[in-house]
Amino acid sequence: MHRHFEEVEKELLNRLLYMGSLAEEMIHLAVEGLEKRAEEPLKKVAANEEQVNNLHIELDDRCLKLLALHQPAAGDLRFIMAAIKINSDLERIADQAVNISENAAVLLSQPPLQRKLLNIPRMAVLAQGMLKDSLDSLVKKDVNLARSVVGRDDEEDKLKGSAFTDLMELMQSDSSTIQRALGLILIARNIERIADHATNVAEDVIFMVLGKDIRHHAQ
Amino acid sequence: MHRHFEEVEKELLNRLLYMGSLAEEMIHLAVEGLEKRAEEPLKKVAANEEQVNNLHIELDDRCLKLLALHQPAAGDLRFIMAAIKINSDLERIADQAVNISENAAVLLSQPPLQRKLLNIPRMAVLAQGMLKDSLDSLVKKDVNLARSVVGRDDEEDKLKGSAFTDLMELMQSDSSTIQRALGLILIARNIERIADHATNVAEDVIFMVLGKDIRHHAQ
Repeated sequence: MHRHFEEVEKELLNRLLYMGSLAEEMIHLAVEGLEKRAEEPLKKVAANEEQVNNLHIELDDRCLKLLALHQPAAGDLRFIMAAIKINSDLERIADQAVNISENAAVLLSQPPLQRKLLNIPRMAVLAQGMLKDSLDSLVKKDVNLARSVVGRDDEEDKLKGSAFTDLMELMQSDSSTIQRALGLILIARNIERIADHATNVAEDVIFMVLGKDIRHHAQ
Repeated sequence: MHRHFEEVEKELLNRLLYMGSLAEEMIHLAVEGLEKRAEEPLKKVAANEEQVNNLHIELDDRCLKLLALHQPAAGDLRFIMAAIKINSDLERIADQAVNISENAAVLLSQPPLQRKLLNIPRMAVLAQGMLKDSLDSLVKKDVNLARSVVGRDDEEDKLKGSAFTDLMELMQSDSSTIQRALGLILIARNIERIADHATNVAEDVIFMVLGKDIRHHAQ
């Protein structure tokens, strides 16, 4: 009575990718709301969150059933291990998008800062690209693409460091900016965490394809 | 040639608990360094990190081998699913302890704030208790203890909210405190994340014991 393993595995992958696309959209909407000072996109972030949370539970359940019913080995088993971990990273990415959206909503209620958003939109573009490519590397089992995602994480850390420095200077030079600058610092931190999770996804893809754990520079 | 499943499973649990005890120690040391303004404990945090990272890799490998060689079912399978996820949460807790320690090191290079650390030590005690109890609930398969951990997360969020408010007021009233207050805000956020991860561990224990997913209030 068991359905063919490949079929069920394909379905799991598709649901994971769908969850990833929802998370990508949430980041996009949260940053759009921040940049355009628009509430509408921020509301959509909250609407996506419930779907992501449901998928989080559904995907763990699918993984458990695949393990229980099909007792997969080797590459198939590594795929499911990767799926369990990627599921958790995608859920956390969605959480961070919600945090960005909540911090952005507070900023919208106040006048814009003169120095605007500094390099935060650039950080967001980088993180979104890392997430997109990490998911593409999963579909294509493309180790080189996954490695390029891992390689981009340092750039994100540098951008965050420079955003922190600029925002702290701003707070020190004009105390009326403190609350808003702090909001942006928290958003920069949220985006950096998204890049970290995308890096985790890419590392899981590398492990899945090569059977080799490169985390913590173990290679 | 396969060793008895229970024996290998027991070993996995013991290694997971050892990793948890290292992470607990890292939180303790990071906060001790912050409170006593002492560098020595902060250095020990960095020393523990490498061990935790090695365990992170080792434990995923143990889980994969258990799945491949023993093809466990039902409760045993749920235990391994839980172990995979708890492994990842413990690694992230250790990461957050490193972040606290790095932020504390910067604070140590500057004169102490008059208002000291506000409710941050209390936040740390709460998070450490949540981590300890989540691991105890794993050992004892104690659903009530796990539920009590989940229940404490709201208190941590409230404490963080009040720390944020106090620290923002401090920055606004005295701009010479901005950098230090920001350091404490980041530490409060790190501690809150530790409590979140401990909550994840507790939720995984509940799922492992009951076969019931209570995340995202699914119950």
